[in-house]
Amino acid sequence: MNRILLHHDEISPDGNAVVCDARAQHIINVLKAEPGQSIKTGVINGLIGTSTVVNLNKQLGRVNLKCSHTIPSPSAWCDLILAVPRPKVMKRLWAQLAALGVRRIALINAFKVEKFYFDSHVITAEFYTDLLLEGLQQAGTSLLPEVTVHRSFKFFVEHELDRLFEPQCRFLAHPTTENSSISSSLPSSPVLAIGPEGGWTDHETETLLNKSFTPFSMGKRILRTDTACIAAIARLGGIFDKN
Amino acid sequence: MNRILLHHDEISPDGNAVVCDARAQHIINVLKAEPGQSIKTGVINGLIGTSTVVNLNKQLGRVNLKCSHTIPSPSAWCDLILAVPRPKVMKRLWAQLAALGVRRIALINAFKVEKFYFDSHVITAEFYTDLLLEGLQQAGTSLLPEVTVHRSFKFFVEHELDRLFEPQCRFLAHPTTENSSISSSLPSSPVLAIGPEGGWTDHETETLLNKSFTPFSMGKRILRTDTACIAAIARLGGIFDKN
Repeated sequence: MNRILLHHDEISPDGNAVVCDARAQHIINVLKAEPGQSIKTGVINGLIGTSTVVNLNKQLGRVNLKCSHTIPSPSAWCDLILAVPRPKVMKRLWAQLAALGVRRIALINAFKVEKFYFDSHVITAEFYTDLLLEGLQQAGTSLLPEVTVHRSFKFFVEHELDRLFEPQCRFLAHPTTENSSISSSLPSSPVLAIGPEGGWTDHETETLLNKSFTPFSMGKRILRTDTACIAAIARLGGIFDKN
Repeated sequence: MNRILLHHDEISPDGNAVVCDARAQHIINVLKAEPGQSIKTGVINGLIGTSTVVNLNKQLGRVNLKCSHTIPSPSAWCDLILAVPRPKVMKRLWAQLAALGVRRIALINAFKVEKFYFDSHVITAEFYTDLLLEGLQQAGTSLLPEVTVHRSFKFFVEHELDRLFEPQCRFLAHPTTENSSISSSLPSSPVLAIGPEGGWTDHETETLLNKSFTPFSMGKRILRTDTACIAAIARLGGIFDKN
């Protein structure tokens, strides 16, 4: 944890907070903090800053903090449309996507997505929220990605895509395209669509291209979904000088 | 497996090969190949191409192939100097580094590397070779990364660095630097140095900067070592139009 995050309602109006879970253990055992010490903290979906350790009970694993959060978090800068991957892969991805600065994650269906992936607990808020927070606390940011799940590709494209994502800056990860036409001026947050392990079908690719997606190459290598997500986001970040 | 890889000595001079391990299971159960069918194959550290399924014994899990390998593999384009991460993280990284096209991996020591990481079986060739092959078979390439392990940071920098890596194109992943000075013309394979979870010490950073490393920013976010490796390689690949 490079920044400990608190819920808004954990902090009193005068800036006092008490933590007594894994965060307290981290302050006591990893940071080995002592009263008076300043540590990096932040409010989930709010400002970041530092907190002073006021009091610390090692036996009870409880830490009293005086918070001072005055700085905006680095902003989440890109959106991801992801054909739901295998639960094992999705589980690995949550924290990494949050750490990389993804603002919105739309999990969608595609012809080559196995139907049972949608029934996995891995894509429930109860499961992923802690992993997203873990990623934010690693990265030192505070803005929790919004997650939506869409069981119909057709319905998503026809009725939800334009409502959720601006049309100016849509990219479709595609293994064989040239990237020459990508401009590095960024009118809005880019959104990146990443297909299932077996790829989009021709029909799906065509549908997305008709919806203003620009093909975005990751070269000749075929990457596993989790590697591809991280690599494509990092590469987009390089082009747009975002991170 | 997007390409099945064979050892050079598994193929007879007239191009025949028999496989009867996980690769045969993949051909039979995942590709559901039939005699006469052509599948993507390659020779480890050699040419790639296709093989025709000559014969296929589902009971014995054995496949006879007639190989035709005439195309060079996409070349491995970057080198990595990595302060040994926790075994759990290193285990996850091997396949991904091979898939991303890393040519050489030097695992080195640093002040914030725990000494016992060097005793882990995770950094032995017996352990990592299969994972590197898994990554190549995922990516569809054939060039196995070379791995070296260096237990002394000082000895590595003074005696091994210049022998292993060309001095023209060395980058040091660094969270806070600006990237304005990086030229996109590439005189040789770039080498990227990535520090331990706690970062390089000031002395280590200074030592590497004195050895012609250019700071290379990954932005304000602090990424986990595995995420950082993939993101930094992908971003370098974007700058140099490699992948």
